[in-house]
Amino acid sequence: MMEEKHITWHEGSVIKQDREKIKGHKGAVLWFTGLSGSGKSTIAAELENVLHAAGAHTYRLDGDNVRHGLNSDLGFSDGDRVENIRRVGEVSRLFVDAGLITLTAFISPFQKDREMVRSLFNEGEFIEIYVKASLEACEKRDPKGLYAKARKGKIHQFTGIDSPYEPPTAPHLVLDTEKLTIEEAVQLIVSYLQKHKYLKN
Amino acid sequence: MMEEKHITWHEGSVIKQDREKIKGHKGAVLWFTGLSGSGKSTIAAELENVLHAAGAHTYRLDGDNVRHGLNSDLGFSDGDRVENIRRVGEVSRLFVDAGLITLTAFISPFQKDREMVRSLFNEGEFIEIYVKASLEACEKRDPKGLYAKARKGKIHQFTGIDSPYEPPTAPHLVLDTEKLTIEEAVQLIVSYLQKHKYLKN
Repeated sequence: MMEEKHITWHEGSVIKQDREKIKGHKGAVLWFTGLSGSGKSTIAAELENVLHAAGAHTYRLDGDNVRHGLNSDLGFSDGDRVENIRRVGEVSRLFVDAGLITLTAFISPFQKDREMVRSLFNEGEFIEIYVKASLEACEKRDPKGLYAKARKGKIHQFTGIDSPYEPPTAPHLVLDTEKLTIEEAVQLIVSYLQKHKYLKN
Repeated sequence: MMEEKHITWHEGSVIKQDREKIKGHKGAVLWFTGLSGSGKSTIAAELENVLHAAGAHTYRLDGDNVRHGLNSDLGFSDGDRVENIRRVGEVSRLFVDAGLITLTAFISPFQKDREMVRSLFNEGEFIEIYVKASLEACEKRDPKGLYAKARKGKIHQFTGIDSPYEPPTAPHLVLDTEKLTIEEAVQLIVSYLQKHKYLKN
């Protein structure tokens, strides 16, 4: 990669635009929000596959890699939920600054918290994607069996059951997963990213 | 980047090795530790310039982008210092998982905290770099005027003055900045990364 004797010196610090340049695309966060079971994680994972296959530099933040690590000290109280989203927002900001297309998949039920996250970003860096499905549909899918537990009172403060979900008022994209296949949903996002020049065509 | 009609589908999730492949190098964290004024940030910034110029995908975490964002809720009590380093460790783990060469520049004075961070990583992903300079030298440099403030009692619990610094017991690299120039220190790290196959030669 480099000769030991020929280090290239460069004035100033490496900044976002430098990092984007070697990646060939813009850094931005795709913030997926929606009920448990709406399809956020599935769509985000498939989208990452497609973007990666096209040579894009991506990272996906979700409960699996955040709740058990950075946010392992947080529970599900109102205060901890706010802090959970705040930290995910701040970490996303670092990833966007690193030039990556960052995908986050968290229920993030409250408009106020999502607006706080949006405020961390420059124009165009935050793309809110509402993964829409009715409570009935999500409860019927219940991929993790969480709705059944919530209905039995084994989980409290579960979004949609005994805690509210506030749909985004002005999302960049709405993906109705009762009408769209995963492939169609992913295609809509890719088209959005191309149309708005996040990706080179 | 991709045709709208020709999405490439890919089984399974994108993992670290996939991300490393399109970057052409391994993901790892270079954990700089040392007294305030030892040269951690300066060396990390210059190293990032060199790595970036060579096409490596990097990100640098330091007080500027972490203390004012993710860790803006933390102060300088013992508990908050531990939490500061824990979060930086966890965020570094995410960046390494993203395949980036991640540079962190924090005093991180306690061996126990650094060992906790090291335990988050797989073999070879964590590279501890001790930026060594005597308290006298650092205090003489005092680039931010912090030692003067600490001596006057305007800052409490300042590492080296009224809070201890525990040097690493088995760092991967020791850079004595009373003897080395910045260029020499950077060259030693680049050589280490090449020798241990983090970078393609």
